[in-house]
Amino acid sequence: MKLYFSPGTCALATHIALEDVGADYELQRLDFSKQEQQSSEFLAVNPKGRVPALVTERGILTETPAMLAFLAQSHPKAALAPLDDPFAFAEFQAFNSYLCSTLHVAHAHLGRGHRWSNDPAAIASMTAYVPTSSAAAYEHVEQDVFKGPFVLGDAYSLADAYLFTVAQWMERDSLNLKQFPKIVAHRAMMAERPPVKRAFAAQAALSA
Amino acid sequence: MKLYFSPGTCALATHIALEDVGADYELQRLDFSKQEQQSSEFLAVNPKGRVPALVTERGILTETPAMLAFLAQSHPKAALAPLDDPFAFAEFQAFNSYLCSTLHVAHAHLGRGHRWSNDPAAIASMTAYVPTSSAAAYEHVEQDVFKGPFVLGDAYSLADAYLFTVAQWMERDSLNLKQFPKIVAHRAMMAERPPVKRAFAAQAALSA
Repeated sequence: MKLYFSPGTCALATHIALEDVGADYELQRLDFSKQEQQSSEFLAVNPKGRVPALVTERGILTETPAMLAFLAQSHPKAALAPLDDPFAFAEFQAFNSYLCSTLHVAHAHLGRGHRWSNDPAAIASMTAYVPTSSAAAYEHVEQDVFKGPFVLGDAYSLADAYLFTVAQWMERDSLNLKQFPKIVAHRAMMAERPPVKRAFAAQAALSA
Repeated sequence: MKLYFSPGTCALATHIALEDVGADYELQRLDFSKQEQQSSEFLAVNPKGRVPALVTERGILTETPAMLAFLAQSHPKAALAPLDDPFAFAEFQAFNSYLCSTLHVAHAHLGRGHRWSNDPAAIASMTAYVPTSSAAAYEHVEQDVFKGPFVLGDAYSLADAYLFTVAQWMERDSLNLKQFPKIVAHRAMMAERPPVKRAFAAQAALSA
């Protein structure tokens, strides 16, 4: 497999998942400062012009929740999601879906407001509001969803890789970390896991 | 099961899915004009204060992609998703994830800009930009993803219920329908399916 990524993006979740399953894969870094995600070469891989994209022997996948479920389902022995219980699997999916459709979207208004307006003043207003909208999304995770010590409770799942990934952005979103003790503790715990360390090291080696 | 919905929302996708699987369920309408989605009674069901929410015997589910996969997986004989092939299932999920995280989000800026700014001028700017951002999302579906006659090709899946649901908003988003012949034809085909007709009739009966 081949993962197209850029450092600091949500591609980290799928990258950790590849490490979790022990996949044989290569990394391809896209340099956003050179707009490589909009190159004709990459648009042929992912016409959305965004990372991540995962090249598999069957074809190309995009969208983090889909790739996380795919890696869990295609490596059942790794036990990275509650695969045998449709309700528990739905809770896993609902968490991932909330991150991609609400929490990540709140964060995206920090630097990607041009997706939703072409007025510089409106874009600046969106940026300024991120500490409010992002905090509301984290508050929901902290208070209503997170079971502890992992997202779904006692067992690690790829929802943890995804939460850890977006939580890298908490400082950029100007959040008050004291409001989110469970998520901050989870982030610290996750940072110590060997698959996470390997993913960071591999990305750093390609970004030097 | 019990589905909390409001007419004209993405709850329609899960509603159609309940009809597709022949589920035994009841409907609970929330009146958005009375802010019933923010009532303490409903917040106890879904602290996000949004529809849809699906009460099952195991607990409450939210997030359309999660509920669609849950209904497909818990009713395998209905064959509403490619359940036995992780890659094909991932394509199903990637489609649903794109709708919730990009296409629906583009549409949400039409009337829900207050989620991302508290400046009335910025919110008006977001509303004005929806025909552009929404068209870009539909263009991706029309040109890059939709296989035909159904989203995934020859077989109907709950991705079709979801596309049909969001496509109800194309006129509200001021799209030029001639740009999207496949999606418009799909919408017309879907409207004739008995589960879709039953869902519309049930919603209308509760909205009279």
